[in-house]
Amino acid sequence: MLKPYVLGIDIGGTNTVFGIVDARGQVIASDSIKTKKHTNFDDYVKELHDGVQRLLEKNDAEDKIQGIGIGAPNANYYTGEILNPPNLPWGPIIPLAEKVSKAFGGIPVAVTNDANAAALGEMTYGAARGMKDFIMITLGTGVGSGIVVNGQLVYGHDGFAGELGHLIMKRNNGRMCGCGRTGCLEAYCSATGVARTAREFLEVRTEPSTLRNLQIEDITSKDVYDAAVAGDKMAKEIFNYTGTILGEAFADMVTFTSPQAIILFGGLAKSGELLMKPLQEAFDRSLMPVFKGKTKILLSELKESDAAVLGASALGWEARNRFDNAVNEVTGAEPEKA
Amino acid sequence: MLKPYVLGIDIGGTNTVFGIVDARGQVIASDSIKTKKHTNFDDYVKELHDGVQRLLEKNDAEDKIQGIGIGAPNANYYTGEILNPPNLPWGPIIPLAEKVSKAFGGIPVAVTNDANAAALGEMTYGAARGMKDFIMITLGTGVGSGIVVNGQLVYGHDGFAGELGHLIMKRNNGRMCGCGRTGCLEAYCSATGVARTAREFLEVRTEPSTLRNLQIEDITSKDVYDAAVAGDKMAKEIFNYTGTILGEAFADMVTFTSPQAIILFGGLAKSGELLMKPLQEAFDRSLMPVFKGKTKILLSELKESDAAVLGASALGWEARNRFDNAVNEVTGAEPEKA
Repeated sequence: MLKPYVLGIDIGGTNTVFGIVDARGQVIASDSIKTKKHTNFDDYVKELHDGVQRLLEKNDAEDKIQGIGIGAPNANYYTGEILNPPNLPWGPIIPLAEKVSKAFGGIPVAVTNDANAAALGEMTYGAARGMKDFIMITLGTGVGSGIVVNGQLVYGHDGFAGELGHLIMKRNNGRMCGCGRTGCLEAYCSATGVARTAREFLEVRTEPSTLRNLQIEDITSKDVYDAAVAGDKMAKEIFNYTGTILGEAFADMVTFTSPQAIILFGGLAKSGELLMKPLQEAFDRSLMPVFKGKTKILLSELKESDAAVLGASALGWEARNRFDNAVNEVTGAEPEKA
Repeated sequence: MLKPYVLGIDIGGTNTVFGIVDARGQVIASDSIKTKKHTNFDDYVKELHDGVQRLLEKNDAEDKIQGIGIGAPNANYYTGEILNPPNLPWGPIIPLAEKVSKAFGGIPVAVTNDANAAALGEMTYGAARGMKDFIMITLGTGVGSGIVVNGQLVYGHDGFAGELGHLIMKRNNGRMCGCGRTGCLEAYCSATGVARTAREFLEVRTEPSTLRNLQIEDITSKDVYDAAVAGDKMAKEIFNYTGTILGEAFADMVTFTSPQAIILFGGLAKSGELLMKPLQEAFDRSLMPVFKGKTKILLSELKESDAAVLGASALGWEARNRFDNAVNEVTGAEPEKA
């Protein structure tokens, strides 16, 4: 008999959020632990398990979990591992799926990176319901992406496909990127990128700006947003600059998979017309004629507080399916229909 | 009962080549007609049909064709039409699949653009056998591409995905491209692009080159190749320039679908180390660390004279399958197994 819930777990640099999710995409209950409290991965898994167990008991859901989906930076769908995470304390290769599945008595676990999880969440419960071809772009500290083609997430031959934040947008004198190269989209169009643009504009230009009242090294994308909303000209130009690069990048993305939509998620995506207007203009101007007017740019329809858990949970249903298939291969039984 | 052959048809700007192909990828027989002899599309289809009919009769294959696959510029897999072909005389919307199927008494027809057909050919009979994720790049008059993800060709929501020849490689002062924009990969790395680079180098630079003995406006990529093989320094630099841009573009492509291989086809791809050395170097240097050393750059394994027909023919098997499914939906019959 199929169980009614999945567990979604989102491992972020600061918090690990987990939630019980039903088939209609309702987060029944959720809680979180601090990600970096334990430098030993087994201790982290134990605390995660205890936290989840408490949540399951409180919600009378102890035997109702079909599968567990986990979104984590650099997590690999094929191997179930986290590989060289820039921001987690447990070493270069973390056997995430294996250890979590073992802690939960063998419940099937599937993992992927956070942007892929966001794409799955959007496809299962959000703005991409019914779409077979779309691209999810997450604008946070970095720029992440999840690509869906023919209704399937694109993992590539090694599980690491979909690094569109690292398309090269400036081939000469590009900014240093965290990936070790220069000129990546992420170096310009993440929250961090917006702050860097602000510092660059303030240093190179001479016109007045309310941003000059702030400590230049402490400026955040939120400061730039607030200044722009208050009418600061330079702050608006920073959003123009950011949106234009994003729009040009999106036009390149369309030449790949010709998606029905590109869907934006994350803090920066909530900048409204400040970002969306120059983005849409640059996108329309930059598209190949054959693609003009076809691909929509949309905002995520998932509530931000639920999105990470929902995205990860979408993978939990798939983890169950993979398990069923494996069992069927052995037993020859017919799969149950949901 | 399944029939043993498919028909592959490649519609080029000059010739239309067609061949009878068996399941092992043998071209049993082939012939061609001139593409532009008739400005009326119905007349063209009639001549094509007559030519194919003669070939079938000669090879005792009249009732042995399962399906017809056609590769043509701007052909759309979903609609079966050719849309706004730059180089064909039959108008802006050509109902290719419908008219050809009708001419052949209802044999199922599937169409796609020539680069997608090349990718299918390579996957079915060539260097990509057994691969589920690869990118085909055709270096001819233009730069075409076919992207395969999870063993399926990527068509996108509108059937026009995979225009990687139109990734923007120069965002400032880029060359005009046939698509109406500037800076596209195709403007630099096609055969035409190589000739344009030669003209640019000859005009801007002052050093001697055997290319200066030619009429500058008549220089072809073949001239540049011959000069480079004979040791001309500027001609070699033209290949370095071309290969470097290609390698950088390939590194961007890997961030999308993380393919097992990028496979090259077409005249320029046969330039050997002149092109491949700078290409591989730029590729290795430009890749994101997570992808380094994983994606191979390979040459097509299909004989050039057969490749276009083989690629198109690979789609012929699929046309048959689609037809079977359609029939089964109506009759409820089980599909036949090949």
